[in-house]
Amino acid sequence: MVEMKSAFPIVIAGPSGAGKTTLARAAAARDPRLRFSISDTSRPIRESEADGRDYRFVGEREFEERIREGRYAEWAKVHGDYYGTPRSEIEEGIARGEDVVLDIDVQGCEQVRAGYPETLAVFIVPPSLSVLEKRLRERRTEPEERIRTRLENARAELERKFEYDFIVVNDRLEDAIEAVLSIIRAERCRAARLRETAGAR
Amino acid sequence: MVEMKSAFPIVIAGPSGAGKTTLARAAAARDPRLRFSISDTSRPIRESEADGRDYRFVGEREFEERIREGRYAEWAKVHGDYYGTPRSEIEEGIARGEDVVLDIDVQGCEQVRAGYPETLAVFIVPPSLSVLEKRLRERRTEPEERIRTRLENARAELERKFEYDFIVVNDRLEDAIEAVLSIIRAERCRAARLRETAGAR
Repeated sequence: MVEMKSAFPIVIAGPSGAGKTTLARAAAARDPRLRFSISDTSRPIRESEADGRDYRFVGEREFEERIREGRYAEWAKVHGDYYGTPRSEIEEGIARGEDVVLDIDVQGCEQVRAGYPETLAVFIVPPSLSVLEKRLRERRTEPEERIRTRLENARAELERKFEYDFIVVNDRLEDAIEAVLSIIRAERCRAARLRETAGAR
Repeated sequence: MVEMKSAFPIVIAGPSGAGKTTLARAAAARDPRLRFSISDTSRPIRESEADGRDYRFVGEREFEERIREGRYAEWAKVHGDYYGTPRSEIEEGIARGEDVVLDIDVQGCEQVRAGYPETLAVFIVPPSLSVLEKRLRERRTEPEERIRTRLENARAELERKFEYDFIVVNDRLEDAIEAVLSIIRAERCRAARLRETAGAR
C-alpha cells in the first residue's frame, strides 16, 4: 500500500563536546536498519584506535587524489589533517536499504545536504555553554587555548542550529539517544518519504 | 538554549477499521505529555460506554447550540448523530503543556488543521484492503451492506493519505503504537517547533 522511496543519509552534527559521536554510534548500535558511516582521515592512527572502526586511515596523497576524483560526499582539512566521508559509505548503505548515520560538523552537513537533498539533519546541543565547557575540560587533555577555541567555535555553530531539521538537547544521554532514534523512526513514516505501491489498492 | 514554542494538537485519522482509536488511546496512555481528547456526541449512550470516558453525551439541541456558538474545532453529522471535538478539549490541554490527541476522520482533520495550523496529522492505514475487510467482519456485528459502505469509504479515504504529515501502517499493533509515539516525540524536537531561549547563550 505504501513503502519507503529509499533509505536516506542522517547527519548528526553539533559542536565539539555536545556528544554527537556517542549519540550517533549508540543510535546505530540499537537500530538494525542504521549503518554508522566510517570516515577517512589522513592523520596518524592513535594507539586506542582501529583502522576501519574509528576511521579508515589513508595517506595524505591518496586522500588528495580521492578529493580530485570527487569521491567524498564531504571533506575538510582540520589542523592540517584531512577528514572526509566517502560517497561509497553513503551509497552502499542506501543500496542495501540502510539509513546511513554521519557524525560530522556543520560545514560537512552543508556539503552532504547539497549532494543528497533527502538528508535528515539533526543538531545536537549541550544543555548550556557552561555544561559544554565542563565536558570539554573533563574529557580532553588539551591546553587552555584549544579549549577556548572550541568554545568560541561552539558558540558560532550553535547560532546555526535552526538550519537543521531537528534539534536534540543532550542533557541526559539516554533521553538524547531515544530522541535521535525517535526522529529516525518517525522519518521513515513521513508521507514525503513514502510512495504508493500497487499492493492492495 | 531551546524550548518548545508550545504543545500542539495531534490528529490520528484513517479509515474505519484501521485501528486509529486503539492507537490513539494506547499512545496517550504511554506518554505522560499526551492527553486523549474526548469528543461530544448526540447519539444515545451504549451499555458498554461511560459518559466522559468514551464520549461526552450531549442532547441534540444542546449540540446544535454549541455548533452555533462556534465551540467545536471540528464536527460532523454521521447517520443522523452529531460528533465533535470541543475547542476547549484542545485549548485546555495545550495551556497545560500537553499535546492533545484527536481520534477523528478525514473531514474532521481538515477542520482541525484549518483552525490549528500547527496540527500534526498522522494517517493510519491497514496493511491491505483485504486485511481491513477481515477486521471489519471480525469486529462488527453489522449487516453486509454497512460493511460494503465502510470499505468503499475506506478506499476513498486511503486515496488521500499523502495529504497527511505521516503515514503509519498498522500491521503489528505494538509496532504501530511505537511508530506513533516516535512521530510525536520527534515532533517535539523539530526545529520549526522550537524557539531560542535566553538560557546559556
